[in-house]
Amino acid sequence: MEIYNSKEDYLKELESRCPLPAGFKAASLPFTFIPDERPVDKPLPMKINLILLDEPTDSFGGVFTRNKFPGNPVIIGRKRLDEEKLTRGVLINNKISNVCAPGGEETAEDILAKLGEHLGCNGKELFPSSTGIIGWKLPGHDMKKALPDLLKKLQDESICCVANGIMTTDAYPKSRTVKVRNGRITAIGKGAGMIEPNMATMLIFILTDLDVSREIIQESLSEVVEKTFNCISVDSDQSTSDTALIFSSRKKASVSKEEFKAALYDICKPLAEDIVRNGEGTSHVIKVEVSGAENDEIARGIGKAIVNAPLVKTAIYGNDPNVGRFIQAIGDYLGNNGLEADRNHLRILLGGEEIFAEGFFRLDIDKEARLSAYLKDAALSEKPLGYPEHNKSVLISVEMGMGTGIAEVVGSDLSHEYVHENADYRT
Amino acid sequence: MEIYNSKEDYLKELESRCPLPAGFKAASLPFTFIPDERPVDKPLPMKINLILLDEPTDSFGGVFTRNKFPGNPVIIGRKRLDEEKLTRGVLINNKISNVCAPGGEETAEDILAKLGEHLGCNGKELFPSSTGIIGWKLPGHDMKKALPDLLKKLQDESICCVANGIMTTDAYPKSRTVKVRNGRITAIGKGAGMIEPNMATMLIFILTDLDVSREIIQESLSEVVEKTFNCISVDSDQSTSDTALIFSSRKKASVSKEEFKAALYDICKPLAEDIVRNGEGTSHVIKVEVSGAENDEIARGIGKAIVNAPLVKTAIYGNDPNVGRFIQAIGDYLGNNGLEADRNHLRILLGGEEIFAEGFFRLDIDKEARLSAYLKDAALSEKPLGYPEHNKSVLISVEMGMGTGIAEVVGSDLSHEYVHENADYRT
Repeated sequence: MEIYNSKEDYLKELESRCPLPAGFKAASLPFTFIPDERPVDKPLPMKINLILLDEPTDSFGGVFTRNKFPGNPVIIGRKRLDEEKLTRGVLINNKISNVCAPGGEETAEDILAKLGEHLGCNGKELFPSSTGIIGWKLPGHDMKKALPDLLKKLQDESICCVANGIMTTDAYPKSRTVKVRNGRITAIGKGAGMIEPNMATMLIFILTDLDVSREIIQESLSEVVEKTFNCISVDSDQSTSDTALIFSSRKKASVSKEEFKAALYDICKPLAEDIVRNGEGTSHVIKVEVSGAENDEIARGIGKAIVNAPLVKTAIYGNDPNVGRFIQAIGDYLGNNGLEADRNHLRILLGGEEIFAEGFFRLDIDKEARLSAYLKDAALSEKPLGYPEHNKSVLISVEMGMGTGIAEVVGSDLSHEYVHENADYRT
Repeated sequence: MEIYNSKEDYLKELESRCPLPAGFKAASLPFTFIPDERPVDKPLPMKINLILLDEPTDSFGGVFTRNKFPGNPVIIGRKRLDEEKLTRGVLINNKISNVCAPGGEETAEDILAKLGEHLGCNGKELFPSSTGIIGWKLPGHDMKKALPDLLKKLQDESICCVANGIMTTDAYPKSRTVKVRNGRITAIGKGAGMIEPNMATMLIFILTDLDVSREIIQESLSEVVEKTFNCISVDSDQSTSDTALIFSSRKKASVSKEEFKAALYDICKPLAEDIVRNGEGTSHVIKVEVSGAENDEIARGIGKAIVNAPLVKTAIYGNDPNVGRFIQAIGDYLGNNGLEADRNHLRILLGGEEIFAEGFFRLDIDKEARLSAYLKDAALSEKPLGYPEHNKSVLISVEMGMGTGIAEVVGSDLSHEYVHENADYRT
């Protein structure tokens, strides 16, 4: 991951990561509204964003949260995937997530129907997507009123405006693009980071002009999400709104599933890391490589257990190589999931140093000092390297010695800034 | 739970909660040692504590952590329960937990063998118990050398010295006692609280002189632990060392299992709450009452999901009734465990106010203001009520409408003090 001299340099570079593939347009519009649920001194800002295909496409797919109380956009999105043969794109707002709010599904459909009227299509050919506060009502009237101005802003150059417009407390907009033959895949994402207070909601939108079928595009998305976005964890909270949507205009070269999937992985992997890293409260990014688990799913579970354990996260935040907490987290996960383990086959390394092998910790005074220095070096320093502030990671390697399952999980430490941001989010 | 005018008043009152049942003695001894693993300016303090039966008993039981990498005292304790017909008691140290340290099992057995020599019994008739830093080695030599002085301090009046001597970062010693017919049950506990940095290790020791068989004592302990200590959660980390041990001298009246279990529950329930409440970093104590789940286990899982969600914990710390996060936590737990739910049957109350019913949030400006005031009132204030600092709770009621499963789970908020204590624990 590259570091730039300044935020301006980063944002300039971001433009080059944001080209729209052929057959797409995009727009973003800010406006203000008064919420029903809470008195406010002045109207609250919201952005609505539109990703639009020039023509309806039959090639699209989606992956949603497993949370049992999903937001209305997720409920509607699942229906679209089940019921619709064609789509024109997605309308996205920040500030309010439209989860379990009275009349929320109807409001979302009503806004999309209005947008369909403007576009000359059925509202069912559009996906809704929302992120922000849970429980509050979408300002449907204000959003519908804003649509004509939004449509005026459509352009076919860049998705940069949407990468910006879907942010909540993200530190910076996030995008990746890759050329494949004469076509392209471009992906943007919002969410999470250490300071994301709003359930770490993650929204991912991926656009391509490569000619892939609906079946291939869905399968590729599902498989790539599993190894990228599902392997990051900021605070173990699974949002009611997590969503990844993919659309193809099919305007360019036809590619095999393998070629498409490989290119998709290449942009989703760094985008997932961006999401962990972009929190202003994130001091350490923690990468856990697990190998030798019984299968990949267990490997991922072990990795997540480590990056989600508050005691591991706080120790790393404090640059304290309190490695006993790694063992605690792994053992807790295995014990609570009825899984087997053999301490004698387990091996753990921190920053390349062996800290556990053949049943016992391998620690001494000199090693503790080296590990402490290693953690300190991987922290966000008072003099940032540039923008984003740093690109270092704390590497924890766990060799289970039980099978061939592997995973790489990326998480973040637990800082004072996290508590501060999340205790005070809505005030 | 009572509040006293000062810590002195609390400690004076504690004496009355600490009588030793007939047939027991207890002692605690402080000493210092130099650890092998880290340079220290001055020797570190440790306390060793002994709970001793006057005569070997056949009535004893234990419940241990489910963590797959348990400490050596847990490994040895399980063997004692499996292999031994009689026991004389337990030797307990703080500061080092003896987990995965090279030679740790041998060291623990060696210390107990030495203690057995002094007592004229086999070391196998004694349980070991340790809490503190994971990975470091027990100072076996120093501990053995301290045994004669420890034995000189044995007395049969009070277990107060041990309630004090097993603490690590506990804010205060914890004990409860109850009379049953002509006998008594006395329990002490250490651990956890918001600031416990050492894996929230919980140690519970329960002594009685009531005449109950080994079978009854083990069954009662297992069932009561499930509904008390297994229903508290401070930071979701399950220690490698969590232990509850129970011993009976059988000197007094014989009681039925039902009578014994009821009395045991009556002291374990408040002792479990003490453990959550005793952290100096705990601002809010959170009680989640779940009813109408498919079974008790799922009810407990839902309760724990709420009190363990960092976003719930930080919101409550900030007195922000961000109730969307409750839905998120419940839905996350259900979704990740393949369980069903019907949003339309779900009802949630915060401090007695209905916030979710029939599929939707029930929020308005006035209610948000009342809920915010409710949370503020339940927080640790700058002017503490006395000692312990307060006895208030935040009550969250969740009615699932799916069955008859119930649970009450007690947890704590996530504060700056938690991050501070746990980032800096070993330095």
